Amino acid sequence: MTKIGLIGAGGYAGVNLLSILLRHKEAEVAWLMSEEAHKGKKITELYPHLLGLCDLSCQTFDDLDKVLGKADVIFLALPHGLSLKYVPKMLAAGKKVIDLGADYRFNDEAVFKKWYQLEHPDKKALAEAVFGLPELYKEQIKKARLIGNPGCYPTASILGLAPLVKNLLIDPDSIVVDAKSGVTGAGRGISLKVHFCERNEGITAYAVNNHRHMGEIEYQVTRISGDQEIRVTFVPHLVPMNRGILATCYAKLIKEIPTNKLVGLYKEFYKGQAFVRIYENGEPCTKNVSGTNFCDIGISVNEATGTVIVMSCIDNLIKGAAGQAVQNMNLLLGYPEDEGLKQIAVYP
Amino acid sequence: MTKIGLIGAGGYAGVNLLSILLRHKEAEVAWLMSEEAHKGKKITELYPHLLGLCDLSCQTFDDLDKVLGKADVIFLALPHGLSLKYVPKMLAAGKKVIDLGADYRFNDEAVFKKWYQLEHPDKKALAEAVFGLPELYKEQIKKARLIGNPGCYPTASILGLAPLVKNLLIDPDSIVVDAKSGVTGAGRGISLKVHFCERNEGITAYAVNNHRHMGEIEYQVTRISGDQEIRVTFVPHLVPMNRGILATCYAKLIKEIPTNKLVGLYKEFYKGQAFVRIYENGEPCTKNVSGTNFCDIGISVNEATGTVIVMSCIDNLIKGAAGQAVQNMNLLLGYPEDEGLKQIAVYP
Amino acid sequence: MTKIGLIGAGGYAGVNLLSILLRHKEAEVAWLMSEEAHKGKKITELYPHLLGLCDLSCQTFDDLDKVLGKADVIFLALPHGLSLKYVPKMLAAGKKVIDLGADYRFNDEAVFKKWYQLEHPDKKALAEAVFGLPELYKEQIKKARLIGNPGCYPTASILGLAPLVKNLLIDPDSIVVDAKSGVTGAGRGISLKVHFCERNEGITAYAVNNHRHMGEIEYQVTRISGDQEIRVTFVPHLVPMNRGILATCYAKLIKEIPTNKLVGLYKEFYKGQAFVRIYENGEPCTKNVSGTNFCDIGISVNEATGTVIVMSCIDNLIKGAAGQAVQNMNLLLGYPEDEGLKQIAVYP
Amino acid sequence: MTKIGLIGAGGYAGVNLLSILLRHKEAEVAWLMSEEAHKGKKITELYPHLLGLCDLSCQTFDDLDKVLGKADVIFLALPHGLSLKYVPKMLAAGKKVIDLGADYRFNDEAVFKKWYQLEHPDKKALAEAVFGLPELYKEQIKKARLIGNPGCYPTASILGLAPLVKNLLIDPDSIVVDAKSGVTGAGRGISLKVHFCERNEGITAYAVNNHRHMGEIEYQVTRISGDQEIRVTFVPHLVPMNRGILATCYAKLIKEIPTNKLVGLYKEFYKGQAFVRIYENGEPCTKNVSGTNFCDIGISVNEATGTVIVMSCIDNLIKGAAGQAVQNMNLLLGYPEDEGLKQIAVYP
Repeated sequence: MTKIGLIGAGGYAGVNLLSILLRHKEAEVAWLMSEEAHKGKKITELYPHLLGLCDLSCQTFDDLDKVLGKADVIFLALPHGLSLKYVPKMLAAGKKVIDLGADYRFNDEAVFKKWYQLEHPDKKALAEAVFGLPELYKEQIKKARLIGNPGCYPTASILGLAPLVKNLLIDPDSIVVDAKSGVTGAGRGISLKVHFCERNEGITAYAVNNHRHMGEIEYQVTRISGDQEIRVTFVPHLVPMNRGILATCYAKLIKEIPTNKLVGLYKEFYKGQAFVRIYENGEPCTKNVSGTNFCDIGISVNEATGTVIVMSCIDNLIKGAAGQAVQNMNLLLGYPEDEGLKQIAVYP
Repeated sequence: MTKIGLIGAGGYAGVNLLSILLRHKEAEVAWLMSEEAHKGKKITELYPHLLGLCDLSCQTFDDLDKVLGKADVIFLALPHGLSLKYVPKMLAAGKKVIDLGADYRFNDEAVFKKWYQLEHPDKKALAEAVFGLPELYKEQIKKARLIGNPGCYPTASILGLAPLVKNLLIDPDSIVVDAKSGVTGAGRGISLKVHFCERNEGITAYAVNNHRHMGEIEYQVTRISGDQEIRVTFVPHLVPMNRGILATCYAKLIKEIPTNKLVGLYKEFYKGQAFVRIYENGEPCTKNVSGTNFCDIGISVNEATGTVIVMSCIDNLIKGAAGQAVQNMNLLLGYPEDEGLKQIAVYP
Repeated sequence: MTKIGLIGAGGYAGVNLLSILLRHKEAEVAWLMSEEAHKGKKITELYPHLLGLCDLSCQTFDDLDKVLGKADVIFLALPHGLSLKYVPKMLAAGKKVIDLGADYRFNDEAVFKKWYQLEHPDKKALAEAVFGLPELYKEQIKKARLIGNPGCYPTASILGLAPLVKNLLIDPDSIVVDAKSGVTGAGRGISLKVHFCERNEGITAYAVNNHRHMGEIEYQVTRISGDQEIRVTFVPHLVPMNRGILATCYAKLIKEIPTNKLVGLYKEFYKGQAFVRIYENGEPCTKNVSGTNFCDIGISVNEATGTVIVMSCIDNLIKGAAGQAVQNMNLLLGYPEDEGLKQIAVYP
Repeated sequence: MTKIGLIGAGGYAGVNLLSILLRHKEAEVAWLMSEEAHKGKKITELYPHLLGLCDLSCQTFDDLDKVLGKADVIFLALPHGLSLKYVPKMLAAGKKVIDLGADYRFNDEAVFKKWYQLEHPDKKALAEAVFGLPELYKEQIKKARLIGNPGCYPTASILGLAPLVKNLLIDPDSIVVDAKSGVTGAGRGISLKVHFCERNEGITAYAVNNHRHMGEIEYQVTRISGDQEIRVTFVPHLVPMNRGILATCYAKLIKEIPTNKLVGLYKEFYKGQAFVRIYENGEPCTKNVSGTNFCDIGISVNEATGTVIVMSCIDNLIKGAAGQAVQNMNLLLGYPEDEGLKQIAVYP
């Protein structure tokens, strides 16, 4: 049994992580941590759906020294800029750390600073951290101490683009990612933006040209291309639904390739990957992956314009956060990659 | 491994049943059956969310003789009036049968006829069938050959009312059940009533005073009271959401009892029941049971009017259909009651 | 042209009031007032849908003395306990006042105090205020200086119950109102309760046995009955939709009356009322009144239990707030009762 | 008073057209026509929200000869391939015709045939028909006998792209339109695709690379450019909401232009247009135009990739269908362009 410490249990990513870990055969959640306002509260006070399923109460960072020793692996699901304060101590204590936030997704402190306007105080760990996208970096993950778990938009976008970029099939200047997300992507924090009545019955773009995940996508796509720096046009949208991301990706093919050949290429690229499903026909829908760790991908070529369209769907809280984090833990600890992650979408 | 035949796999109850059985450690789905239009189709053509998870194709009733021998237990998830044509043959072949439809929920053919306008051709089985509400009839279920799995509204309503009725705490003439259901309750069949735009952003009552589940609730509540015939005022409503039923039940208390005492009484009544959760405070929300086999119950007394208010929440497709059916199978076959049913709500 | 001052423009009721007044032929909005945080902001900053339609900016109470003289009629759409601080001054200045909040809905200070835990400082105005439900109090409204505009739940509930209560057709001890509301009923203020993801895909009761509108319903129903004090069992529910209230009302008939006779009685009761529509068959849906000042009512008797079921639908922000307020203004000033209120539901 | 004949009243576009015409000061709806199944039914049987507002019943095409003389202007809101059978007779009878379907949107029969797989039997009228996008073709509309009212996606897309294309600011090979629509875009006809539970809580692309509106956008954009044939990459998506289209349009700028300069250029381009609102900042949301004839446009340049992003929002049933049709009628008959179209969005 691996003992788990879970920090950020009060948020949506945190509570989904908790649910996965509660059914994980090799994991035992030793303690939960949340924000000051939750100190001492039972997790079931925050989330009554867990009644009878989890009896833990919330600790806060004040308790870190006390509980650190009781966990082998620590997950952090926090807003950016917080993890970096605590991770050094955890690593020093010999813990394996999986950070669901943004603090360890870039190995390059300058890029981190550009997108997050923060000086990173932990450059050594930053350099060492592995980007936890198992379909691309499985071997590195297995040997990691510290994993920067990818963002939700980047997970969908990078998995959608990787086969094209890696095989140099597209004009790197032409990439457009039009991404659509359910409202859980904005977290459980309250604001007018997530007010039911403001989101319901409307769709809107937001953070156009300045969403931080654009930097993460560019950084990774550049890395995959092994080549010049790639810049991406990325526009996220908020859709009136709870869960799911659909990233519709567009790029100019540098030569004619029919749809079915690209489908074959994607299947080959993701061969053996338990959580990527390539559609032979039809368009993926976010509902098909809801509550699961799958990434469903459909491909279609517009021959008249020479444009490839890749539709990549994930559950933003699972493959885009908590599920991928557990997938990373499984790799790290040598458990079956899908342990705790065999969920079937609750459909419809 | 128990071999399962699943009839009605194309519907929402059927596909949820399939999902539960796919993760059940002791069950193996041997074959699926659906309507004529689905003959020969892979279940993943009807439900792409099952890609990579189930490779079965749909048979039809034409294939029944061929496949009957390959199953030990047969589930039927069909509109009323269909199961009764096939169940006799299945029983004769020594199969255990769990009918999710309405054909075997009444032991009394006259009551069945009153509500379904059908002469029941299978009176012997009708008399033998056990009403599959495990919290009330566990011992009978364990010994049954044929189970009439309760309807969705009756499951929520009866579990909500049973402690009051059994303990003769309420005026039996005063029961009102105001029930609210997600749209999956109407099934996957197409009609204007389930058109997205007609349901979205609106709530309406329907089938006022003539919904067939009213008969089922009355029949069971009468039975629980062990007394005079009880008639219930039952009004179902359609709510713009996919899953869940909230039955808000009202009745006049025949003597003063404070809320907390009733809470205690409910806790006692459902002691040891894995799937009933009584709230000590707060109101249950259908989200808290979504995708699970739980029934969450809250109780409150309006002292000024002497009225008890019971709020009973289930997932109409799980505790109200597929989950309860598997719970019944588990009891019938001696498996742990919660095998395959340990789901945690995918929240939010 | 009547000059209007609108206080509380930043809220949902306020902005709907503004929209109605912008198309009112006899009204001109002279000034808007909102909370401190909106001081000086254009209303289009708060509500971009008004771009090109309204150029006003928000004042605050600091500006009241300055702008009071510029309005003939003042609407207040504020949380309870605020209007009562300002109304005396407005009345003293000779203004007509329509308060959409709760401060002037009871003529009896003791009842106000019971439900709002506030000592009312303005007892004279309280005694004089007219409850602005035009279908019941048209003549009084025409002569009023100060109108307490009814709450949303009370409007739907009272209009649904009035013909029964007035005609003494029901057992007054037996009234149950199971009310369902869209989320706009909770206002534009932010909280976890109105977070999109917490409301979407779930229904729940709330404020069971202690919602303040219960007091308002009881007070008015008692008044209509001209009789003993009536107590009502009232349970509100939050439904995942923006607008609309459906109040499903139940009561025991004191003698047998068939549905069609009750329909006739309701038609007679509301004869000549422009905004009440009685359904001859079918159930009203909140969508049918969305964006309009209509109250749609359906009636059905459960003969077995002797219970009458009344389904009463309104748009909580229009007939339940802003529309009714303008209807009251029209009566007060002698304009056609439906001026500014001829909206047809935007369907679907 | 202009007498109106409305064909296709049973559909969503038709009933929205009816609502607008009911409040139009110069129009009187003389008769309604719908499909065979609606023959003789009151429109309020199909649409109870019109109770008390419209007493007309549905005719069918069998009645056309009888009623043709009673209308001055005829609107057709029909699936493609039907209008072209009846329009010649209407024109011959001297009627003004506004076709909301696709039959007269192309002047070129070859293009029509390419996209609709139909030989057009009415080439003369096809050549004469005016594309009813008032912001681009106001003068031609004023003189037209026959108007092909634009599709919903084309309206949003063309208004979004026109200033860029007309001013030759973008690489015509680079246009991507990622469009998101509410479900009313699929009409009131029933199918699994529009089942509430299949659409709710999911987003998906559909008709990728073969939606007929792609042809309409290409045809018009080519015409606006006055230049070579432009091909567009167009991907429509279905969003779980009733109304609204957001077309997010992407194109490579052929030279550097900052966002604010483009905003100015759009403002200039649409100067004096009553129904186009250019945002100086912030992103348009479909909610802001819901129920109105507005097209709201936001513009943003990604300087790193040299890509302009245009976000164009309409209500698909109003500016994308019924509202634009009335706008066209107003121009045609010399009424104020916004008569009947002064609606303010019902917000939220």
